[in-house]
Amino acid sequence: MTAAVLGAGSWGTTFAKVLGDAGQDVALWARRPQVAEAVQRRRRNDDYLPGVTLPDEVRATSDLRDALAGADLVFLSVPSQTLRGLLADVDGLLVPDAAVVSLMKGVEEGTGLRMSEVIRQGLGVPAERVAVVSGPNLALEIAREQPTAAVVASESLDCAMRVAAAAANRYFGTFVNTDVIGTEFGGVLKNLIALAVGIVVGVGYGDNTKASILTRGLAEMSDFAAAFGAQPETLAGLAGLGDLIATSESPRSRNNRAGRLLGQGYTKDDVLRTMDQVAEGLASLDPVLALAAARGVEMPICTQVQQVVAGVLDPRELAPHAAQDPAPVGE
Amino acid sequence: MTAAVLGAGSWGTTFAKVLGDAGQDVALWARRPQVAEAVQRRRRNDDYLPGVTLPDEVRATSDLRDALAGADLVFLSVPSQTLRGLLADVDGLLVPDAAVVSLMKGVEEGTGLRMSEVIRQGLGVPAERVAVVSGPNLALEIAREQPTAAVVASESLDCAMRVAAAAANRYFGTFVNTDVIGTEFGGVLKNLIALAVGIVVGVGYGDNTKASILTRGLAEMSDFAAAFGAQPETLAGLAGLGDLIATSESPRSRNNRAGRLLGQGYTKDDVLRTMDQVAEGLASLDPVLALAAARGVEMPICTQVQQVVAGVLDPRELAPHAAQDPAPVGE
Repeated sequence: MTAAVLGAGSWGTTFAKVLGDAGQDVALWARRPQVAEAVQRRRRNDDYLPGVTLPDEVRATSDLRDALAGADLVFLSVPSQTLRGLLADVDGLLVPDAAVVSLMKGVEEGTGLRMSEVIRQGLGVPAERVAVVSGPNLALEIAREQPTAAVVASESLDCAMRVAAAAANRYFGTFVNTDVIGTEFGGVLKNLIALAVGIVVGVGYGDNTKASILTRGLAEMSDFAAAFGAQPETLAGLAGLGDLIATSESPRSRNNRAGRLLGQGYTKDDVLRTMDQVAEGLASLDPVLALAAARGVEMPICTQVQQVVAGVLDPRELAPHAAQDPAPVGE
Repeated sequence: MTAAVLGAGSWGTTFAKVLGDAGQDVALWARRPQVAEAVQRRRRNDDYLPGVTLPDEVRATSDLRDALAGADLVFLSVPSQTLRGLLADVDGLLVPDAAVVSLMKGVEEGTGLRMSEVIRQGLGVPAERVAVVSGPNLALEIAREQPTAAVVASESLDCAMRVAAAAANRYFGTFVNTDVIGTEFGGVLKNLIALAVGIVVGVGYGDNTKASILTRGLAEMSDFAAAFGAQPETLAGLAGLGDLIATSESPRSRNNRAGRLLGQGYTKDDVLRTMDQVAEGLASLDPVLALAAARGVEMPICTQVQQVVAGVLDPRELAPHAAQDPAPVGE
């Protein structure tokens, strides 16, 4: 198979390595020619993946037409708000029947569309040629060949299988499903629960509290996603729970860090001042809770996070259960 | 309500405090009179819960008849292999319609029965008066009033609700379900996956690998439990996932510690020599995998743990996916 990976950040570069190590010929496209040249010459992308050497199967280019020539599988890994612009450049350069795969998490500002929806709109490709990859994806760990697993979702099981088979290698296991909605929402919702986990860790609570928040938080993620047509099992898998745990554990996660600061008593303004880039969870809290309210989905943990952020709930009071409800039915 | 808690170890004593803080009158029974006297006099059980003061609602006694007099709810928290003997002493002392609640995890050696099954046999009480409590239950954290949540399961929803309402307080949230099998199996199976998590942490792998093992391990737990009549959702809840995360995070967990030693290259014999008490997961690995094989349940992670323990798989090769299977369907 011939694959193209568009976007040479840490995850795009890592995924090019994953595909190369799985035996595919891969073109890695970088927007800036000097980045493409450096990667091509040195076989490394040291800004993002220090110490990681790319396999011979990966070549780097800044020429989009060159990258896409003959590519049966096209993977997209650019900042989510720049996707639509890139798609305009890609349009017309795809080989017939190429599958287009999102490696991105997030929703488009303004439209609220998921990445796979933006791809379908931007390229006019049918849903059965679009897939998404998600899971516990700390790029540097995968680039260092630490064993992990990911999900490939597409409305077409054939398409998902094609992508999954192309990416699977000895350190990267792939699973497939057809629940694109659940797979993509998992990547958005986990940031909210990672904030909650950060808060209770910041307060100083231990492993029990953390485990309770993760578990009940997963239930909220599942309820929300199900209300929008996802299968709850998807959220219990790698693209929900798996990603949630990795994010909640990683000191590199901005959401985790923002939560810990809130738990230590800093205000939202304090937190925003100390961070060079906004934690996604802080940005998506209000829109997600508005959507939840519109569909009648209860999200007690996310609601408490919103209250902590607003300064009306002491972070020490954040609990995995709603205090006024002594014995909720169902688990 | 009047409650009795039989067993004054760390979890029994903590649970007596939980009930007392929820407003119940609680008799805490200790087998040894000097323990009961010390707890009654000092309001503390310093051997297990240093620095924790019990509320006035809790009294301690070593007289079983005294403890059970008028108790509508009887909680059992003794070593699982001593349960059957205690039940013989309890029989005949229960008030009519008392609910009997297991706070224990494990299966009875020899019979392989779950704790709730031993209770039903030993006391001749009907299933609708038996409940079990499980979840992420690190006793000392709960005794320190760190927010957590737990599940109460009974075949009778009324019984579960009665127990859940009696135990819920501001730091202890209770959820109910009717899946006793899933709730009890969660407490057994999580030890096997905690071993696997310990192994990959011991090898030196990071948060991704850990998250992948936890997530795919949960899927194995769910598949196993479902084959024995449990509901898979139960395993995704506090009694499965929640307990699994708390156990996998806690340096106090013997299973976690045993796994880490195996991951660092120590043999099973080395591990057994360094631990004063056997890690439950090591003991239940073979029986669980035999049961799984008999029902046709695949447990690739548990199987790899068994291979590491047997010395035939390098712990660095333990992966969240089966290497020979590039794209398993389903998530």
